[in-house]
Amino acid sequence: MSNSTIAAIILAAGKGTRMKSDLHKVLHPIAGRPMLLHLIDNVKTLNPEKTVVVVGAGRDQVERAAAPHGVATAHQVEQLGTGHAVQQAKDALGDFDGDVLILYGDVPLVSAETMQRLTGRLHGADSPAVVVLGFRPADPGAYGRVIVEPGSDRIAKMVEFKDANAAERAETLCNSGLMAVRSRDLFALLDRVGNDNAAGEYYLPDIVMLAAADGRASAVIETDASEVAGVNSRAELAMVEGAWQQSRRARAMADGATLIAPETVWFAYDTEVGRDVVIEPHVVFGPGAKIADGAVIHAFSHVEGASVSGGANVGPFARLRPGAVLEADSKVGNFVEVKNARLGKGAKASHLTYLGDAEVGAEANIGAGTITCNYDGFLKYRTVVGAGAFIGSNSALVAPVTIGDGAIVAAGSVVTRDVEADALVLARGTQEAKPGWAAKFRAIMAAKKRGG
Amino acid sequence: MSNSTIAAIILAAGKGTRMKSDLHKVLHPIAGRPMLLHLIDNVKTLNPEKTVVVVGAGRDQVERAAAPHGVATAHQVEQLGTGHAVQQAKDALGDFDGDVLILYGDVPLVSAETMQRLTGRLHGADSPAVVVLGFRPADPGAYGRVIVEPGSDRIAKMVEFKDANAAERAETLCNSGLMAVRSRDLFALLDRVGNDNAAGEYYLPDIVMLAAADGRASAVIETDASEVAGVNSRAELAMVEGAWQQSRRARAMADGATLIAPETVWFAYDTEVGRDVVIEPHVVFGPGAKIADGAVIHAFSHVEGASVSGGANVGPFARLRPGAVLEADSKVGNFVEVKNARLGKGAKASHLTYLGDAEVGAEANIGAGTITCNYDGFLKYRTVVGAGAFIGSNSALVAPVTIGDGAIVAAGSVVTRDVEADALVLARGTQEAKPGWAAKFRAIMAAKKRGG
Amino acid sequence: MSNSTIAAIILAAGKGTRMKSDLHKVLHPIAGRPMLLHLIDNVKTLNPEKTVVVVGAGRDQVERAAAPHGVATAHQVEQLGTGHAVQQAKDALGDFDGDVLILYGDVPLVSAETMQRLTGRLHGADSPAVVVLGFRPADPGAYGRVIVEPGSDRIAKMVEFKDANAAERAETLCNSGLMAVRSRDLFALLDRVGNDNAAGEYYLPDIVMLAAADGRASAVIETDASEVAGVNSRAELAMVEGAWQQSRRARAMADGATLIAPETVWFAYDTEVGRDVVIEPHVVFGPGAKIADGAVIHAFSHVEGASVSGGANVGPFARLRPGAVLEADSKVGNFVEVKNARLGKGAKASHLTYLGDAEVGAEANIGAGTITCNYDGFLKYRTVVGAGAFIGSNSALVAPVTIGDGAIVAAGSVVTRDVEADALVLARGTQEAKPGWAAKFRAIMAAKKRGG
Repeated sequence: MSNSTIAAIILAAGKGTRMKSDLHKVLHPIAGRPMLLHLIDNVKTLNPEKTVVVVGAGRDQVERAAAPHGVATAHQVEQLGTGHAVQQAKDALGDFDGDVLILYGDVPLVSAETMQRLTGRLHGADSPAVVVLGFRPADPGAYGRVIVEPGSDRIAKMVEFKDANAAERAETLCNSGLMAVRSRDLFALLDRVGNDNAAGEYYLPDIVMLAAADGRASAVIETDASEVAGVNSRAELAMVEGAWQQSRRARAMADGATLIAPETVWFAYDTEVGRDVVIEPHVVFGPGAKIADGAVIHAFSHVEGASVSGGANVGPFARLRPGAVLEADSKVGNFVEVKNARLGKGAKASHLTYLGDAEVGAEANIGAGTITCNYDGFLKYRTVVGAGAFIGSNSALVAPVTIGDGAIVAAGSVVTRDVEADALVLARGTQEAKPGWAAKFRAIMAAKKRGG
Repeated sequence: MSNSTIAAIILAAGKGTRMKSDLHKVLHPIAGRPMLLHLIDNVKTLNPEKTVVVVGAGRDQVERAAAPHGVATAHQVEQLGTGHAVQQAKDALGDFDGDVLILYGDVPLVSAETMQRLTGRLHGADSPAVVVLGFRPADPGAYGRVIVEPGSDRIAKMVEFKDANAAERAETLCNSGLMAVRSRDLFALLDRVGNDNAAGEYYLPDIVMLAAADGRASAVIETDASEVAGVNSRAELAMVEGAWQQSRRARAMADGATLIAPETVWFAYDTEVGRDVVIEPHVVFGPGAKIADGAVIHAFSHVEGASVSGGANVGPFARLRPGAVLEADSKVGNFVEVKNARLGKGAKASHLTYLGDAEVGAEANIGAGTITCNYDGFLKYRTVVGAGAFIGSNSALVAPVTIGDGAIVAAGSVVTRDVEADALVLARGTQEAKPGWAAKFRAIMAAKKRGG
Repeated sequence: MSNSTIAAIILAAGKGTRMKSDLHKVLHPIAGRPMLLHLIDNVKTLNPEKTVVVVGAGRDQVERAAAPHGVATAHQVEQLGTGHAVQQAKDALGDFDGDVLILYGDVPLVSAETMQRLTGRLHGADSPAVVVLGFRPADPGAYGRVIVEPGSDRIAKMVEFKDANAAERAETLCNSGLMAVRSRDLFALLDRVGNDNAAGEYYLPDIVMLAAADGRASAVIETDASEVAGVNSRAELAMVEGAWQQSRRARAMADGATLIAPETVWFAYDTEVGRDVVIEPHVVFGPGAKIADGAVIHAFSHVEGASVSGGANVGPFARLRPGAVLEADSKVGNFVEVKNARLGKGAKASHLTYLGDAEVGAEANIGAGTITCNYDGFLKYRTVVGAGAFIGSNSALVAPVTIGDGAIVAAGSVVTRDVEADALVLARGTQEAKPGWAAKFRAIMAAKKRGG
């Protein structure tokens, strides 16, 4: 919408006391990703020249989390209000000259599109000094109100709830705190913000009225209340998570996936779901899952870092862990865990199996109770099962080991050496019977029980 | 209510583009059964002389699905409106002379009782030409309105929303599209329906006004909006599924089952649930499950095609597949799968077990980690465990094999030959120790790690 | 609030026909604990001198359930109304002289604080004869109304809905049936209650108007409708369970636990959850679970009678049963069951394992598919795994057995004798290969299939 240069300031200095957590508030995850990174991800799509995270309490944690994402941090030593917090970013912005977006680390769901609307409006014909993001909550309660000039989006007044008169309180357009301002204006106006109020704080919204005093109007754009929901407690965290999930589920369905019980399916921030995918009730996705067109995820499955091809069947009660790759028409059934392992086309592991660090060839059949023994306490080793091989039930494949194409492993075997293609391998004890032993044993135990 | 002969026409020719699916819309399942079959099932209870499904897009799929259910199909080659669609059924109805119910393949939850009310009203003393099924949605939105003569159920006017004036739009009774008409009237009236409208389509509801022009009144009966909810998208599919489930859960509870967390329990269309059954949170039923009075289904269980007797305990984390039969007081515990297998009275398989193609005698105990090896890659074989037998943990029973009554299988055995009653069988390797080996191994591996 | 002596009468004589259950209504559990015991627990916190449960239908069941909790029972032989029911408690109260709380076994969520408010108000300066607990339901429907004198909490009239005039029906304050009365007053007033009404029953609320006739006023206090929700059907049972759960989840979050999907987590009445605990979607707690600060319960876990320390990881798909103790940083992974077993600091059982009656030393690693064979059909035996030991995958540890510190069990072993520290033990068959056998077998089976 606008070709101007953009920078973002993300305020993340607050203590978040109501979270009762050793983890900084903005690092609590939504859909498996810290709130702060949701914001940074969205900001990045705007190609900002700079992104500055203002840190304070729990500074080290936030800096560590932000560091890999190419953002700068600024330190707010004392908590003197939002205006003061934004001022701390001035040095980090350096000679940046352009539009500044002001965001909040605990308001994580703001979309890139809304961010663009904010800066876009800044470059409207009337060139407002500040663009404020407003919203209309179900209950406006104690939010600050944005009073507009009738029939326009021009701000007549910004007023804190406690200072508002009855008519102002009757207004339903509230201030989210988010805004866009040109960098030149921002710091010039902030320098004039005072702290002559009950809390002794420097309030960011004051810049709107200061600009007005200069004869410069500001504008407000509106968004849905759910987009600017803030997180100050675990209950609010759960609500924002729920809103995110609801929106993600709706998108999956709109894209052509069946969710039998949408409210029981939990996506991660980056889950990819194709067309004609069926997801049964009670499914949880961890990060990195890709479900291709036509795959079926049965009930009670947990899928993370896995790639599932069309025609593949997962679950019920399957766990796919990072590096699991299910090729077309393969099957991972109940109580089966797959980690860093590939199942070829049509391969099946239907019951009670652990496949770790393995390569399973096309059409191979992994019997119930098969375990790849991939770890010796120090290193991980690889198991290779050839195409069309048949692993008898309750076998242990002690890696590193290769089962050749078309080979058969007899049930209950512990395979420690490679098996050549088309061979049968047995590795189990011999069967020995003791007739009548069980009857005698029962008699003795029953006598003991009576005696004891 | 009426003894007249009945036929049903089910319109299922629409493309269903918004489903974004290779599967025809009316074949998408609700509660594990295609929508179309829900309707056909309900129609069948009225003993219709004929049922005609009008197909168009995806014709082959729909015909294949409908074929086993004794219904005829008619082909609507072009999509020229609902009136045109109904006309396509004329040949298939042949010389049928009676009441015609007009239903929609994507409006799947209409009850047999409502269908009966429609035809019943047709035979009221005033003998209406058409009986329309009306409903009052929470938001009447853009639905066509049914305007009645004050204080009666006689239709004064049927009006599409876009053609309605303000007073008509203020009416809340909407047209579901479902109706009952005598076959004689239906096709005579349809012949007179024109397509002189913006879409160039032949609209079925026009027959009401055509009958009125002949001096024949029509009537409307009302039903709940949830019963006539239509499915045009995956989101609507999920909503209709949810409504079905909510109603099924309520019925299970009214019949005397405890659902601790009803909203987490998902029934199939044919699940049978007895009195004093307890269903814990997070349970999914596939088709064919029968849960007798007094059974307990613990959390995280998946039950399909299985019969569970009173006093039996299932789960948590149990999977019962088709052919599983649990007799009284038997138990299937966590991470246990049962397929095509019967557990006798009081028999137990409590942990990490696969029982496939098996017969387990009364009071037998199947130890943790037991696997029936029922498949050799080509055929399935049967395992028989006698009454009172004790299968030691982590055993593999290689079918076909019979463990006699009261026999004991030592833990970790791979049993390949039959075991006689009351015998003990061992089939495992011998234990060999290498003192100090582990300590040396660790030293070597630790050195390697440092070196590497 | 009041230092008076307290007794409680809990009415539990009703048949509960609508429950359609062989179990008495008041014994149906909420959050894993019978409704009656929820009430008795809360009453106990007030140190009552006596608690009397009035029983009738299903008397034996209720008496057996109440017996261990130090309460008396009184038998109401005929069901002649609430007034009559309370009178049956007179003998059991004996010479008790103090405040009597009247409660209902099927109104289980009444808090101790509300009970205290009831008796506290009885000792207000105006010394009311009776204190009634009122509530304002969303739909007052057919509840009896409490009419107060304007601007006060003094009761002007108690009126059954069917006897109420239009003005009275317009009142929204309803009678929950709960009340507090001095024992002296209670039985004197009850003696004067008649049964001259359509049902021929003695109504408890009549004592309010009888006291008024003596010139003695009564008062009403209010509480939230959810607190006095009654259970007359399984649907209401589910609603009360849901309300309990919602409130418990809110408390867990307020205390600093993250519930990603609160509506999918089901607590037991006594679950303890610490700060910075993370509970993923779809988790069920049975009684007796204690989750310490900083533990993580992954999705699809079932935790009962278990103690989980900080830094420990449970699930996904884990089942902890009574006596499971997970020390700091230990891990119980997918498809793992732990019963009466302790995992030392940093010990891991990550996949497909059954640990029963076991002691696992610090940093020990239990391989996938390990089974402790703890049961011989008569007795349970103990398995001890030393610190730092490594149990190879798919092993069976046949108890009683001890694996020494630092020992290694080779994969697929069946260990029946103790293993000394730092030793390696192997107990498995030897591997034997039959080259080409599998290819021949396939040829034969394929021929059979063609032939058959």
